[in-house]
Amino acid sequence: MAKMIHSMIRVLDEARSVAFYGKAFGLSVADRVDFETFTLIYLSSAETGFELELTVNKGRTEPYDLGNAYGHLAVSVEEVTVERERLSKLGLKPGQLVELNRDGKLFGLFFFVTDPDGYKIEVLQRHGRFL
Amino acid sequence: MAKMIHSMIRVLDEARSVAFYGKAFGLSVADRVDFETFTLIYLSSAETGFELELTVNKGRTEPYDLGNAYGHLAVSVEEVTVERERLSKLGLKPGQLVELNRDGKLFGLFFFVTDPDGYKIEVLQRHGRFL
Repeated sequence: MAKMIHSMIRVLDEARSVAFYGKAFGLSVADRVDFETFTLIYLSSAETGFELELTVNKGRTEPYDLGNAYGHLAVSVEEVTVERERLSKLGLKPGQLVELNRDGKLFGLFFFVTDPDGYKIEVLQRHGRFL
Repeated sequence: MAKMIHSMIRVLDEARSVAFYGKAFGLSVADRVDFETFTLIYLSSAETGFELELTVNKGRTEPYDLGNAYGHLAVSVEEVTVERERLSKLGLKPGQLVELNRDGKLFGLFFFVTDPDGYKIEVLQRHGRFL
């Protein structure tokens, strides 16, 4: 059986991304593996075994093309309104809180925030299937 | 604290993607949530709490632009050579097995396979930090 263990995104500036994911989501560097032409940084938290893998290609300065296929990484939090306020105070410009209902019941309560390279992260209230 | 709970990708053909992720990685549909203009499909396995969220935008036929920013979803398996052979027999055209060493030691043993929409999935031997 296959186990999902990480998601990889390419980023331009290691320090900028590590700072963002740290303050926004409490992720820290579990490992940093340096190769000749690239560096891999594994971000994780005690909350989950899944990791975010950052790839920094050395010498790359041109922004990556985000396309329109990949959507986002989602995280769940205990109190989405508190988190949104916290990220706002940190200057991370979270989007509006959105309530998505289905059959008259709450399906998801969430907002999006954008990382330094333009990747969207969905921050969901821990509710329903988003635990 | 934020917990990573899913990764979302946009796909064109629900049945095609569900079949691929099922036979390639043993993921099954944990939930399917239909809205007026889109459908969300949550794929998971007993191996992990993390899910892959497929978004199908109704009426969309034009392939999505994958860009060059997002990298891949990674899964770990017990026996990567056995898995590669199995995927090959299924006609899924896995790439070559790659051995990545660092400081004279095995860092990662893996291959890539491509899903029906062109997303890359890295299949790693369960080893080192890839557990």
